[in-house]
Amino acid sequence: MRVIVLGADGYLGWPTSLHLSARGHEVIAADNLIRRRWDVLCGTESLAPIASMPKRVARWKALTGRDIKWEKLDLTSLPDATALIAQYRPDAVVHFAEQRSAPYSMISALHAVETQVNNVVGTLNLLFALRESAPDCHLVKLGTMGEYGTPNIDIEEGFIEIEHNGRKDRLPYPKQPGSFYHLSKVHDSHNIMFTCRVWGIRATDLNQGVVYGTGIPETDMHTELRTRFDYDDVWGTVLNRFCAQAAVGYPLTVYGEGGQTRGFLDIRDTVRCVELAMLNAPERGEYRVFNQFTEQFSVGELAERVMAARAHHGLETRIEHLPNPRTELEAHYYNAKHQHLLDLGLEPHRLEDSLIDRVIGLVEHFKKRIKPDLFKPRVDWRRGGSSGFKAPPEKRRRVAAAPAIR
Amino acid sequence: MRVIVLGADGYLGWPTSLHLSARGHEVIAADNLIRRRWDVLCGTESLAPIASMPKRVARWKALTGRDIKWEKLDLTSLPDATALIAQYRPDAVVHFAEQRSAPYSMISALHAVETQVNNVVGTLNLLFALRESAPDCHLVKLGTMGEYGTPNIDIEEGFIEIEHNGRKDRLPYPKQPGSFYHLSKVHDSHNIMFTCRVWGIRATDLNQGVVYGTGIPETDMHTELRTRFDYDDVWGTVLNRFCAQAAVGYPLTVYGEGGQTRGFLDIRDTVRCVELAMLNAPERGEYRVFNQFTEQFSVGELAERVMAARAHHGLETRIEHLPNPRTELEAHYYNAKHQHLLDLGLEPHRLEDSLIDRVIGLVEHFKKRIKPDLFKPRVDWRRGGSSGFKAPPEKRRRVAAAPAIR
Repeated sequence: MRVIVLGADGYLGWPTSLHLSARGHEVIAADNLIRRRWDVLCGTESLAPIASMPKRVARWKALTGRDIKWEKLDLTSLPDATALIAQYRPDAVVHFAEQRSAPYSMISALHAVETQVNNVVGTLNLLFALRESAPDCHLVKLGTMGEYGTPNIDIEEGFIEIEHNGRKDRLPYPKQPGSFYHLSKVHDSHNIMFTCRVWGIRATDLNQGVVYGTGIPETDMHTELRTRFDYDDVWGTVLNRFCAQAAVGYPLTVYGEGGQTRGFLDIRDTVRCVELAMLNAPERGEYRVFNQFTEQFSVGELAERVMAARAHHGLETRIEHLPNPRTELEAHYYNAKHQHLLDLGLEPHRLEDSLIDRVIGLVEHFKKRIKPDLFKPRVDWRRGGSSGFKAPPEKRRRVAAAPAIR
Repeated sequence: MRVIVLGADGYLGWPTSLHLSARGHEVIAADNLIRRRWDVLCGTESLAPIASMPKRVARWKALTGRDIKWEKLDLTSLPDATALIAQYRPDAVVHFAEQRSAPYSMISALHAVETQVNNVVGTLNLLFALRESAPDCHLVKLGTMGEYGTPNIDIEEGFIEIEHNGRKDRLPYPKQPGSFYHLSKVHDSHNIMFTCRVWGIRATDLNQGVVYGTGIPETDMHTELRTRFDYDDVWGTVLNRFCAQAAVGYPLTVYGEGGQTRGFLDIRDTVRCVELAMLNAPERGEYRVFNQFTEQFSVGELAERVMAARAHHGLETRIEHLPNPRTELEAHYYNAKHQHLLDLGLEPHRLEDSLIDRVIGLVEHFKKRIKPDLFKPRVDWRRGGSSGFKAPPEKRRRVAAAPAIR
């Protein structure tokens, strides 16, 4: 299949590009490289150094003989989005190209607006481009389990059968997202669902859980094929951050009580889930939602798993509870379904000591690059970001703050 | 109370400003006047000529001695939004300032993006400004009944109690909006609900039905106090359009079967609903939804009402069914609750012959200004707009199509 991976420079976009290329698909890797600029603006940095996109695809070609076509462009530009789809007329588009940090979206009004404009406009432009030039293309869109929030009933996969006053309907599952970032994904979901109904777009919305891990076999082949590894307060996912904290003798910082329960998955399962979704396209006009995670843990449980894994090697670990910078329930019911991808053949990697060991291994290797200042949460859901953040890039601020029409 | 009316130049914003001013509130009327430019770009025009905002407020002052402060600004500019709220620190903000035409939002990618960016960014900027300078202020936001779509169960007011697998929760009512415009209102609702929870914003989301009518007693006081009256395919609401068609001997054009059922209300009830919501503010942190309409009709029934009202005066009327340019069910269950505003004291105007007569009266008066070409639907939900539309204003296109980050 010919597939465009949007957001191919990211933590998951790059491994997905490699995974699909390794399996014989024709991969076009596209990105605007904004993630690298956001690092500069937040004072953050991938723990493992990462190569440039041209170096990555050249290395991949040298090692495997396989071509990945690299395209630098911005989806929020309609001409760019239109040209990309018209040029390649892909069978599938895997869409990771969004601002994906909840804390980033909560820094300030400019960051909230940048997040929602970037994500919503990029996706709208893509949908129009598909309608115009590739109406049969399957859109595989990365959503988030965070779209659902923490309702007091079971979470279904995208839709729920509701019986009310003696009548029944199957309706979109109610959404209660917990940040401007998560909200942007809810907006996307509604926009995509609508275009499936009206234009016959076919789409799979992958409501993904929290991803952990250092990479996949293909990223391990060469240092230039590595993907990024974030451990900081803005970009780092919780297990990765815990392992980095432990490595430098810091306590694992649990926000609040630690009863916040979420779905998690191994990065090796992310790429497999995307592949499975892609290989099993829905019909024209179908909007399909898969909950993409493999196990549920509370944040407190996760900290204890890391502590246990380290204890196994005779290492001590402390856990510290910080006042929660987020507004979220710290004790709640959580039971989310995730059957669709298993039905398609997913064989989950479980979170085991070995995985934690693997993460700890990478972290130990780059220990000297860890900046413990970056563990501390700098963004509060109620008050916004501390002064340590620079504003979004100038061009993006012009987007975010539209000139007054006078 | 000190109240800012955002979108005060519109069909409803202007009468709302007058209604509140007449009742002794201190009114600040704000608008960017984009609606008048959109008319130029769509080749449309208010049937009743309308005065400029400076003339309107001067005339109001001359007639009543009451001040309405006029502010020209654009909410999508964060500095403008921030300065407005910081300067006036209002008790309430009534927010009409959105692109409100479904067909407009379906013309092209640029129009869809302009609609969602304008509406979502304006509301986000407003929410941040309220958090910063007026955290106690009550946000009265105009949503739409179109957020719900046409589910096969009763429509509740914003939230629904769901029992599922033996557990219960009260959750946001599932949304199935039918255009990029309606989607933008769903996005707003989610964003506002979130800020109520996290920042303690107090908000009332008025999910309004389709409004009909020529004005309110205050707009009838002088020709310079008139509000706009749209009868065209892009901006005209259905009853207003039917009356205009009838006046010039055109058939009433019903889209498809005409079984599409919606909630409707008189413009005199719109201003009263806003007032009632404003006078009865929710607690800090509460996000409240009122369904704001008074009666349900199908489009076919509405056409027959107009025909009957005219027959009463010995006038003939034809009804013509056009292929539906929209994607919507033409026969469906529809039962939407609208109790909250009645509980607060709303005494609805019913759609009666007298009202239709009133609309017909205005239309007859301006008969010569009617351009029958504007009756024809020029926007198809599947294919977009015909070539008769100009692109959004240059500055707005820069917003809509963000420059690529290179």
